[in-house]
Amino acid sequence: MSEVVYNRVALIGLGLIASSMFWAMKRRGLAGEVTGYARSAETRETARRIGLCDRVCDSAAEAVEGADLVVLCVPVGVMGPVMTEIGPLLKPGATVSDVGSVKGHVIEAVAPHIPDGVHFVPAHPLAGTEHSGPEAGFAELFDNRWSLLVPVEGSDEEAVARMRALWEGMGANVDEMDADHHDLVLAVTSHAPHLIAYTMVGVADDLRRVTDSEVIKYSAAGFRDFTRIAASDPTMWRDVFLTNKEATLEILGRFTEELFALQRAIRTGDGDHLHDYFTRTRAIRRGIIEAGQDTAAADFGRAHKP
Amino acid sequence: MSEVVYNRVALIGLGLIASSMFWAMKRRGLAGEVTGYARSAETRETARRIGLCDRVCDSAAEAVEGADLVVLCVPVGVMGPVMTEIGPLLKPGATVSDVGSVKGHVIEAVAPHIPDGVHFVPAHPLAGTEHSGPEAGFAELFDNRWSLLVPVEGSDEEAVARMRALWEGMGANVDEMDADHHDLVLAVTSHAPHLIAYTMVGVADDLRRVTDSEVIKYSAAGFRDFTRIAASDPTMWRDVFLTNKEATLEILGRFTEELFALQRAIRTGDGDHLHDYFTRTRAIRRGIIEAGQDTAAADFGRAHKP
Repeated sequence: MSEVVYNRVALIGLGLIASSMFWAMKRRGLAGEVTGYARSAETRETARRIGLCDRVCDSAAEAVEGADLVVLCVPVGVMGPVMTEIGPLLKPGATVSDVGSVKGHVIEAVAPHIPDGVHFVPAHPLAGTEHSGPEAGFAELFDNRWSLLVPVEGSDEEAVARMRALWEGMGANVDEMDADHHDLVLAVTSHAPHLIAYTMVGVADDLRRVTDSEVIKYSAAGFRDFTRIAASDPTMWRDVFLTNKEATLEILGRFTEELFALQRAIRTGDGDHLHDYFTRTRAIRRGIIEAGQDTAAADFGRAHKP
Repeated sequence: MSEVVYNRVALIGLGLIASSMFWAMKRRGLAGEVTGYARSAETRETARRIGLCDRVCDSAAEAVEGADLVVLCVPVGVMGPVMTEIGPLLKPGATVSDVGSVKGHVIEAVAPHIPDGVHFVPAHPLAGTEHSGPEAGFAELFDNRWSLLVPVEGSDEEAVARMRALWEGMGANVDEMDADHHDLVLAVTSHAPHLIAYTMVGVADDLRRVTDSEVIKYSAAGFRDFTRIAASDPTMWRDVFLTNKEATLEILGRFTEELFALQRAIRTGDGDHLHDYFTRTRAIRRGIIEAGQDTAAADFGRAHKP
């Protein structure tokens, strides 16, 4: 596949995802010209230095002018305000998309500012690393990962099909689902695990009788995987939790229930309960390896800069 | 470094750690003859087939006969019974060690069965993978990882020094600490994180409205790291929680407190609290990378078969 899907693409926000999209689009020639804008002058400077985007603009207005596709790659909490600003400037027939980790809230905040004649096709690529910023991106980030499209009521079929072609061209597998289901699935597979990892790392840091240097030295015993997750971008994650509040709190409630049951099994010495539980969880791991979303190999199948 | 530290070593139990010890000792010629015993005939058969141990014995008694070092590599819960069996057969001047993840309980269960004139030097290598069994081991597992020695009251200094030499010869860094502190440090860095990961994987499996296939397909969003931890050996982990009960429950109590505080911040929309918390946890991650217990690279510095 190597045909132009959109003549003009504008990336608003130039972090890990936007920069990876740029390199992935360039890899296959999926876009004619790609413009980019970031609020921070330092980020724009970095982008220019590393050749990120065909043209880095000093305003969102300049970046979206004449764009066939505008992708909002900013934290979920500021997508509404950004959309308010650029809405009136969009070309008729253009498509607006985003890469936010929460879909219900983004649709609520963005959809009202989409002008007539402009399409809105929310999306969420399930890919990332614990690094952030314009220099963290790379063309292979989305290869064989899932990107979820969350069409809104009345989404234009042809606009959705083009978004699908773009994501497939960038290497991703594409699924469609509605916003509520998306937000629940992500609460389970991403949002609750992140909050839990943050919490455990915080507890370790707080404990007076075990020093930070002990925690750090002996992290290979399991803790290390939590710190990787908990090193993710604080602003992005604050917004995720504040905007996917209900689903996250529901899953955390279920988690607490289960944790209490296991704690009770430990306290009462119920080894069978523990053994059964731990045996069941192994099967899920096997499923993930079989599904190709991870491998048994040492790099755990993670995408990385080649 | 390539001198014989012990002439005769007996490995009781032939799982991931014992097999890695065998290959690591052979790599540097640290042991003369290494015997091995496993309770399961199938494991002994596998060991013979892959050349694990110089001699695989059909009884623990045969394996420990004439040994200068006996290492208990069985689940924590059965170390006491194993020691009862082999205690009377040990050579005067021999050293008994173990590789259990819990030290207080192991010392309580094993020490009373150590005959006069035999040394006891408990140890715990902080290394592992989510794979188990005799075929999972490899010589590099301990390279640049920590191995903790937990001498008991009256441990012979020379016996401790030889254990240190063995572990350093197998590539590990060695620290010494007392059993109570060890069990608390491990509760933070390993035992609580494992229970939490098991719990989260169990919740995902249980949830009716999100299918297992969705959880598996979309695991790259964070959940995947939990499943790796939660795929560890069920018997080993059951025993860890049952024998390091107090410290694990203490840390889980602290964890629950913190989790409730973060949940409340989400519910009340306290973004500053969340952002501050997430910023603090990033520093710990940086510390771990700087300490060389992990790397920023894509394989995350994990030991693997070369």
